[in-house]
Amino acid sequence: MTVKNANPMWGGRFTSSPSEVMQKMNASITFDQRLAFQDIRASRAHCNMLVACQIISPSDGSLIIKGLDQIEGEISAGEFQFKEVLEDIHMNIENRLGQIIGPTAGKLHTARSRNDQVITDFRLWVRDAIGAINLHLLELQNTLVSTAEKHSETVMPGYTHMQSAQPVTFGHHLMAYCEMIERDRSRFSDAKRRMNQCPLGVAALAGTTFPIDRNHTSDALGFDRPTANSLDTVSDRDFAIDFLAAASVAAVHLSRFAEELVLWSSPQFRFIVLSDAFTTGSSIMPQKKNPDAAELIRGKSGRIIGDLTSLLIVLKGLPLAYSKDLQEDKEPVFDTYDNLILSICAMKGMLEDMKVNSETMRQAAGAGFPEATDLADWLVCNLDIPFRSAHSISAKIVQQAEERGCTLKELDLKTMQSVEPRIHNGIFDILSVDSCVSRRNSYGGTSPESVKEQIRQFRINNH
Amino acid sequence: MTVKNANPMWGGRFTSSPSEVMQKMNASITFDQRLAFQDIRASRAHCNMLVACQIISPSDGSLIIKGLDQIEGEISAGEFQFKEVLEDIHMNIENRLGQIIGPTAGKLHTARSRNDQVITDFRLWVRDAIGAINLHLLELQNTLVSTAEKHSETVMPGYTHMQSAQPVTFGHHLMAYCEMIERDRSRFSDAKRRMNQCPLGVAALAGTTFPIDRNHTSDALGFDRPTANSLDTVSDRDFAIDFLAAASVAAVHLSRFAEELVLWSSPQFRFIVLSDAFTTGSSIMPQKKNPDAAELIRGKSGRIIGDLTSLLIVLKGLPLAYSKDLQEDKEPVFDTYDNLILSICAMKGMLEDMKVNSETMRQAAGAGFPEATDLADWLVCNLDIPFRSAHSISAKIVQQAEERGCTLKELDLKTMQSVEPRIHNGIFDILSVDSCVSRRNSYGGTSPESVKEQIRQFRINNH
Amino acid sequence: MTVKNANPMWGGRFTSSPSEVMQKMNASITFDQRLAFQDIRASRAHCNMLVACQIISPSDGSLIIKGLDQIEGEISAGEFQFKEVLEDIHMNIENRLGQIIGPTAGKLHTARSRNDQVITDFRLWVRDAIGAINLHLLELQNTLVSTAEKHSETVMPGYTHMQSAQPVTFGHHLMAYCEMIERDRSRFSDAKRRMNQCPLGVAALAGTTFPIDRNHTSDALGFDRPTANSLDTVSDRDFAIDFLAAASVAAVHLSRFAEELVLWSSPQFRFIVLSDAFTTGSSIMPQKKNPDAAELIRGKSGRIIGDLTSLLIVLKGLPLAYSKDLQEDKEPVFDTYDNLILSICAMKGMLEDMKVNSETMRQAAGAGFPEATDLADWLVCNLDIPFRSAHSISAKIVQQAEERGCTLKELDLKTMQSVEPRIHNGIFDILSVDSCVSRRNSYGGTSPESVKEQIRQFRINNH
Amino acid sequence: MTVKNANPMWGGRFTSSPSEVMQKMNASITFDQRLAFQDIRASRAHCNMLVACQIISPSDGSLIIKGLDQIEGEISAGEFQFKEVLEDIHMNIENRLGQIIGPTAGKLHTARSRNDQVITDFRLWVRDAIGAINLHLLELQNTLVSTAEKHSETVMPGYTHMQSAQPVTFGHHLMAYCEMIERDRSRFSDAKRRMNQCPLGVAALAGTTFPIDRNHTSDALGFDRPTANSLDTVSDRDFAIDFLAAASVAAVHLSRFAEELVLWSSPQFRFIVLSDAFTTGSSIMPQKKNPDAAELIRGKSGRIIGDLTSLLIVLKGLPLAYSKDLQEDKEPVFDTYDNLILSICAMKGMLEDMKVNSETMRQAAGAGFPEATDLADWLVCNLDIPFRSAHSISAKIVQQAEERGCTLKELDLKTMQSVEPRIHNGIFDILSVDSCVSRRNSYGGTSPESVKEQIRQFRINNH
Repeated sequence: MTVKNANPMWGGRFTSSPSEVMQKMNASITFDQRLAFQDIRASRAHCNMLVACQIISPSDGSLIIKGLDQIEGEISAGEFQFKEVLEDIHMNIENRLGQIIGPTAGKLHTARSRNDQVITDFRLWVRDAIGAINLHLLELQNTLVSTAEKHSETVMPGYTHMQSAQPVTFGHHLMAYCEMIERDRSRFSDAKRRMNQCPLGVAALAGTTFPIDRNHTSDALGFDRPTANSLDTVSDRDFAIDFLAAASVAAVHLSRFAEELVLWSSPQFRFIVLSDAFTTGSSIMPQKKNPDAAELIRGKSGRIIGDLTSLLIVLKGLPLAYSKDLQEDKEPVFDTYDNLILSICAMKGMLEDMKVNSETMRQAAGAGFPEATDLADWLVCNLDIPFRSAHSISAKIVQQAEERGCTLKELDLKTMQSVEPRIHNGIFDILSVDSCVSRRNSYGGTSPESVKEQIRQFRINNH
Repeated sequence: MTVKNANPMWGGRFTSSPSEVMQKMNASITFDQRLAFQDIRASRAHCNMLVACQIISPSDGSLIIKGLDQIEGEISAGEFQFKEVLEDIHMNIENRLGQIIGPTAGKLHTARSRNDQVITDFRLWVRDAIGAINLHLLELQNTLVSTAEKHSETVMPGYTHMQSAQPVTFGHHLMAYCEMIERDRSRFSDAKRRMNQCPLGVAALAGTTFPIDRNHTSDALGFDRPTANSLDTVSDRDFAIDFLAAASVAAVHLSRFAEELVLWSSPQFRFIVLSDAFTTGSSIMPQKKNPDAAELIRGKSGRIIGDLTSLLIVLKGLPLAYSKDLQEDKEPVFDTYDNLILSICAMKGMLEDMKVNSETMRQAAGAGFPEATDLADWLVCNLDIPFRSAHSISAKIVQQAEERGCTLKELDLKTMQSVEPRIHNGIFDILSVDSCVSRRNSYGGTSPESVKEQIRQFRINNH
Repeated sequence: MTVKNANPMWGGRFTSSPSEVMQKMNASITFDQRLAFQDIRASRAHCNMLVACQIISPSDGSLIIKGLDQIEGEISAGEFQFKEVLEDIHMNIENRLGQIIGPTAGKLHTARSRNDQVITDFRLWVRDAIGAINLHLLELQNTLVSTAEKHSETVMPGYTHMQSAQPVTFGHHLMAYCEMIERDRSRFSDAKRRMNQCPLGVAALAGTTFPIDRNHTSDALGFDRPTANSLDTVSDRDFAIDFLAAASVAAVHLSRFAEELVLWSSPQFRFIVLSDAFTTGSSIMPQKKNPDAAELIRGKSGRIIGDLTSLLIVLKGLPLAYSKDLQEDKEPVFDTYDNLILSICAMKGMLEDMKVNSETMRQAAGAGFPEATDLADWLVCNLDIPFRSAHSISAKIVQQAEERGCTLKELDLKTMQSVEPRIHNGIFDILSVDSCVSRRNSYGGTSPESVKEQIRQFRINNH
Repeated sequence: MTVKNANPMWGGRFTSSPSEVMQKMNASITFDQRLAFQDIRASRAHCNMLVACQIISPSDGSLIIKGLDQIEGEISAGEFQFKEVLEDIHMNIENRLGQIIGPTAGKLHTARSRNDQVITDFRLWVRDAIGAINLHLLELQNTLVSTAEKHSETVMPGYTHMQSAQPVTFGHHLMAYCEMIERDRSRFSDAKRRMNQCPLGVAALAGTTFPIDRNHTSDALGFDRPTANSLDTVSDRDFAIDFLAAASVAAVHLSRFAEELVLWSSPQFRFIVLSDAFTTGSSIMPQKKNPDAAELIRGKSGRIIGDLTSLLIVLKGLPLAYSKDLQEDKEPVFDTYDNLILSICAMKGMLEDMKVNSETMRQAAGAGFPEATDLADWLVCNLDIPFRSAHSISAKIVQQAEERGCTLKELDLKTMQSVEPRIHNGIFDILSVDSCVSRRNSYGGTSPESVKEQIRQFRINNH
C-alpha cells in the first residue's frame, strides 16, 4: 500500500487547472467500477434484446457478446485497466469493447442512454447487495438462535431504565434480537420487491423510437416487470433510499446489541467475556479486554444514518428528470454496504466466541426483590384483590424484607400476614427467581418454554 | 388564542424548583392526549379479554366498559379535563375511570403494564395515521391522473440538468409523480403490514403470570397476531421509524414537485399559473403571485427528514428493554403526520386549481433542435449506421441548421446530403416536436398513447 | 387543558376547503407569537429612527410608541387576543396598533418590510435565548465545580472502552464536563457575536429609497452594526444554524453525562444514588429508582440534532432572496431552546441532589491492577529501561500477581526481581490507588492538586 | 488503476475468518495515513520536550529525530510501505523507526499514549485543513468581488419566492455570497481558535507521572496552550464537529449559489453561459451545456451534512473517556474536506469563466412593474400619505397600466391623478429600472454606489 493524499498543498494554493478540477469533480470511475459486472450483465441482456427485436443483426450481436465476455474475464482476472479520463464504468467498458471488436461496438448503445444504463447497473448492484445482506443476517440469526437454545434457562436481570426490574432468561434476551433482525430482513425484502422493475429502455428520459421489447430485457435480468414511466425511472433513487433506510434500522439494532455487549463485558457486570479475536488487549494490563469490535459496530450506526440523511438531502427539491446531483447516490450506498456487512460479521463472530458467566447473571437477577410483581399477581389471583391495591400490599411486604435485610422468601408468614391477613403458605411457591421466570409463559413471555417455542417458530419460518 | 410562552425569564434565572423541572420534563400529556381514543380502544379489548379468560368477572368487566364509554364520550365532547399532574394519557383515563366506577377501575390494569399499554396505543395510532395518509395520497393520485388525462397530448420540454433535452408530454410528467406516490403508498403499506402485531400482554418486559389470551386482544384490535418476544416488543420502535422513513421519501417527492411548481410559475417559465387560493399576492404588484404553498411543501421536507433522523438517534445505542428515552418517539411522528397530510392536501389543491399555459410549454419544447436524437435514430434505422456514428452525423446537421438560424425541418435536403449522401426525403416525416413525442411509444415512453396506457393501468390497479 | 387534535377524521376525508388548508399551512401565529416582545422592541427602535431622520413627525412617533407600549402591556397581562386570520405576529400587532391609534399606525411600516422585520425579531429572540442558555450553562458549571471540589480526592475507576484503565478522581471527571460546557458557552458566544448585526432597514430585499439611518436602529437594539448586504440579510439564516449547531454539541455533551448517570446508578455500579426528585419509583419495588430525567436528557439530544438537520435541509439549494421555505426556521429553534434549557436545569438538579458512594467507587478503582502503568513508568524512570520494554516487564509482573491472586503491592520483591533483577524496594511506594492518582499531577492530570488548580482557573476565568 | 472490490462474494458467504473480520474492522491505516506528516511533527515536538525535561538523553533524542526525518523523507518520496497489519499510522511509523534506529525507538513513547497521540495528529490536521479552506474561500471571495465590480451597474430581477420583486444589481447579488463566505471564514476561524489547545501529554486518560512540560510541546506545535483536563481531552471531538458544522454551512451556501447557476443557465433564463470547462455537452445537441459542476456542488451539500450528522450520532451517549467508536471520527472529516475544497475550486472556476448576458438580465428586470414600490414610497415622501395607504394607491395605478398594456412610465399623468389628484410630474423621475436601483442607496442597499462601498469594505478588511 502506498500513501494516498498524504501531501495535499497545505497552506498553498490548490493549483489545479479548471480541467483538473472538473475531472476530479466529475469522474466516477474511482467508485462506480464496483458496478462493472452489473454493467456487463445489463449490456448482454440489452444486446440479446436488440437481436431478438431485429434492431441489430445476430452476427453483430454475437460479436458484441463475445467482446463483453472477454472484458468480464479481464476484470475478474484483475487485468482490466480502468482509466479516469474515460470518467465512468460505462465508457470504460464501451471503449474497451471498441478496441476489441471495432466499430460494431457502437451498435450496443442503440436505444439506450447512459441514464437508463447507470440505474439498471445500480439497481442490479443494490439487489445483489440485499441478497448478500439477507444471507448474513440469516446467519447471525442462526447464531442467536443456537446460543439462545443453550441459554433458554439461564436467568439474568431484565432491565428497564438500566434498573433491574424482573428476571428474564438470557435466551429470551437473545431472541429479542432475532426478532429485530427478522424485521430487518423483511424490510430489505420489501425494498427488493419494490425496486425489482427494469429501467432499461427508458433511454435518456422519454423512451425511445426503436421497436424495443422491454419485457425481454426485464425477464433476462430477473426483474418482475419494466418500469412504467420513463421520466420517473431516470430520476428515481427510491430504491437506494429504501436500501439505506433498511440498513439504518439494522445498524441501530446492532448498535443496541453492541452497547449491551460493551456493558456486559465491563468489570461492573462481568456477564460475558468476549474472545481475544474481537477485543484488543493492553500490553500491560492482562485482564483488560477492550471490546473494540462492539464499539465500532455501535459507532458505525452513525455513519450509516449519515449516509441515509445525505441521499435524502441530495434528492430534496430536485426537478425532473436527470440531474448530475444524482451521481452522489452511489458512494453512500457502497459505504453503508461495506460497513453493515462488516458489522454483521463481527457481531456473529463475537456471539460465537463469547463466554457467558451464567452464575454472575443469576446472582444479579436475584438482587433487589425481583419477585415483588409476582407477589402482587398472586394476591390478585388468589385473594381477588384489585391489581392496584395488590401492588401497594406487595410494596409494604417488600419494605419489611428490606428493613430486615432478608429476601422475600426468607420473610416469615406472620410478617406478611401483618400486612394482609389472608396471605397463606401457598405464597412461598412463587418466591424464587426461577419461579418468576418459568411462570411468565404467556405468549412471547420469558419462560424457558416460551423461548423454546420462539426458537421452534423461527426454525419453521426459515426452512 | 392566548399567548403561550411569551415571557420566559429572559436574562433571568429559570427559577423552577426541581419538581417543576421534572414535571415539565416528564409529563407527556401535552402531546400524548392524541392517543386518547386508541387508549380507550385498547383498554376495552383488554377488559373483554380479561373477562373471557375469567381473570376478572363479567360484572366487573361491564362496569369498566361502561366507564370507558363515558370517558370516550367526554373526550369527544371536548369536556374531558386533561391534567398535567397525572403525567400521561393512561393515568388521566385510569384516574377518571376510578372517579366514575370506583375501585373496580383498579382491575383493568391486571396483566398489563404502562409499557405494553403505551405501545399498543401508539401502534394503533400509527396504523390509523397510515390509513389516513394512504387515502390522501390516493386522492392526490386521482388528481394527477385526471390532470394527466387532460394533458396527454400537451407538449413541454423534457429536462435533464435543467437543460431542455427532448420534448415530453405534460401528462407523462404528471404520471411520473403518480408512480412515485404509488411507491409511497406501497412503502406505507409495508410499514403497516410489518407493524400489525399486537403488543398487549407483554406487560412490563417479561410477559405475565396471568393466564391471558393474547390472540383474543390481537383479534379484537385488528392485528394479525401477537408480537413474539416481550423484551423486543417493549423496546421496539421500528414501526415509528418505518412510518417516518416512508413519510420522508414521500416528502422528498413532494418537495421535487413543489420545486417544479415554483419554477414553472416564475416569470421566466410561465408554464402554469397557480390559483389565488394557494398563493399570496403583493398589495402593490398585482401580477405577483407568490407560490407560498409550494415553497412550504418544499421546506417541510426538511422537518420531516429531521424527525426521522431524531428518532434514529434516540434509539442508537439503547440497551434493552424500556428506557425513558423512548418517550421521545411520539412528537416526531405527530409532527410528521400533521405536516405530511397538510402538504398532500395543499399539493392536491394546487393541481386542481392551476391554469396550464400549453402554448408556452409547446414553444419552449420546440426551441433548440429537440429532434436531433430522432434524426440520429432515423439514420440508424434507415441507413444502418452504427449508433455512435449516427450521433456525430446528426450533430453536424444540427450545426448547419444553427449556422443558418433555421430549424431542422427548414433545412434543405441538399445540405443534409452534404453531410450524409444517403439521407432522403423520408427524414422530414420525423422532424417535428409532435413526431418526437408520438414516436416515443416504447413501454413507459412519453407518447400520448403511452400516457393513456399508464392512466388505464393506474385505474385498473386502484379499483 | 382541553384536548387538541384528539379526533382527526381518521379513515375519512380531510374535508378542509382550499382556503382552510392554506390558512393552516401559511399561518405562523401559533408559534411566532413567541416573538411578540422582540417585535415590539424592534418597532419602537424603527419608529424612533424614523422620527430622528424626519421621515415621520415627532407627534406621529409618540402616538405610535404609546400604542406599542399599550400592546406590550396587554400581552404581558395575557389579555392580547392572537388571531390566526391575521397570520403572523407582525400583522397581529400592526392590526391592534391600528385599532388603538388609527391610520397613523400605517406610518410605522415606512421603509421596512415584513422580510426585514421578521429576521430582526428572530435575531433578537435568538440573541436573548443565547443569553439565557449561557446563564444556565454557567450555573451548571458552578454546580459541577462545587461538586468537584468536594470530590477532588474521591477515587474512581477511569474507563477506556468501559474497561477500567487507571484510577482517576471523581472531581477530575466532573471537571471534564465543566470543560465541555466551557466550549459550549464559547460556541454560543461566537454565534452571538457573528449574528449581532442589525437587519432592520434592508426592507424587502434591495434596501430602501427613504433616507433612513441604519446605525440608529442598530445601536438602539444593541447590535454591533447594520448588516452589509440586503439580499444576503433577507435570505440568511446562518444565525439560527449557528444556534442549533451549538445546541447540538451541548446536547451531545449532556447526553454523554446522562449516559454515565444512568450507568452509575444501575445496580451493577451503584456509584451514585439519584434523588427522588429526578427519578420515578416503582409502586412495588422500593429499591428501584428509574433515572427518567437522565434518560430524557440523553434522548433529547436526538431531537436537537434533528432540528439542526432539518434547518440545513430547508436552506439547501434555495435561490436568493426570500422564499417561504424560510418560515420553517422558527419551530426547530424554539423546540431546541425549550428542550436544551430543560435538559440543563434537570442535569444541574440531579447533580445537586445526588448521593455519591465514594467507597464503592474506590473499591471499583482498586480492582484489576490499576498500578500496572505506574510500575512500567517507575522502571523507565528508575532503571532507564525503554518504555516499550518496561511495559512488557510490567505485564509479566502483573501476570505473577494474577496467578497468585494477590494485588501488586502484596507481591513479594523476590518475585518481581525474578522478572527484572534490578527492581528494588522503592517500587512499593507507588503501588497504591492513591499514589496512582496523586502522582498524575502533570498539567491537566487527574491528581487532587491538579483538580484544585482546574477549579481555581475556572473561578478566575468566570469572575 | 486496478479494480477494487469488483467481485465481492455475491450471494455467497463472506468467508473471512474472525481475525480477518477484526482486521478489516479495526485497521485504520487505509485512511489515517493522511495523518502521516502531522504524526511526525508531533513526535518531533514530543521528543524535543522529553530531552528538554531530561526524561530522555540528548543523544537518544537526536537519534530519534534523525529517524523521524528519514521517515518523513520516505513518505514524501512515496517510498514508505504502509502495512495494514500494523493497523494505524502511529504503529506504522513507530515500527519503521525501530527498524531504522533500533530499541531507542521505544523511548519515544515515554509519557504519551496512542490516545493523546492520535488526537494531537488529528487536531493538527484539522487546523491545517482550516488554513487551506480559508485560503480557498478567500480566493473565491476575490473572484466574487472582482466580478461584482464589473457588474456593479448590471441590472437583474431581484427575486422573492422566485417571483421578480424589485430590480437589483448583479454586483449586489454576487456580494451577497461574498458576505456568506465571510461568515464561513469567521466560523472556521472560531473553530480553529477553540481547538487550538495541545492534547499531547494527557497520556491514556489521566495524565502522566513523568515530569513533562506540556507548554513546551504546545508552543512547539503552535498551539495557544495545553488542554486543561485529561479525561475531556481524550474523549473530546468537538473540534471535528466544529469543522464539520462550519463546512456544512459553507456547503449549503455553495448549494444555493449552484442552484442559481443552474437556473440562470437554463434556456428559460439565459442570464449566463457557463464555460465548456465546467459543463458537459451532448454529442448531438450543440446548444446543450449541462452544468454538471454546479449540480455536483449542489449535491455535495447532502454528503457534507451527512458527515456532520454521522459524527454527532457517534458521540451521542458515549461515556468517558476513550471508546473505539471515536475511530469513526476521521473519515467524515476527510470526506468533507475533499469535497468542500473541490466545490470551492469548481465554483471559483465557473465564476471566472462564465459569460454574463447583461441585456437579458435587464429585460427580465423591467418586466412586471418593478417601480410599483418606488411609486408608493414617492407618495409617502412627497404627499405625506401613510405607507399603507400609499401602497393601495400605487396598486390602483399599476392596475391602470396593466389594463392599458403599458409600463408605468408610459402612463399619462391624468390617469394617475384620477387615482390620486395630488400626483405631479415629479413622479416620472423615479419610474425606471435604473432609478429603482440607484435610489436604493441605503446602507447595504442594491445601488451601484452601495455595491462599490461593499467592495471597498471587503478590500479594507482583507488586506
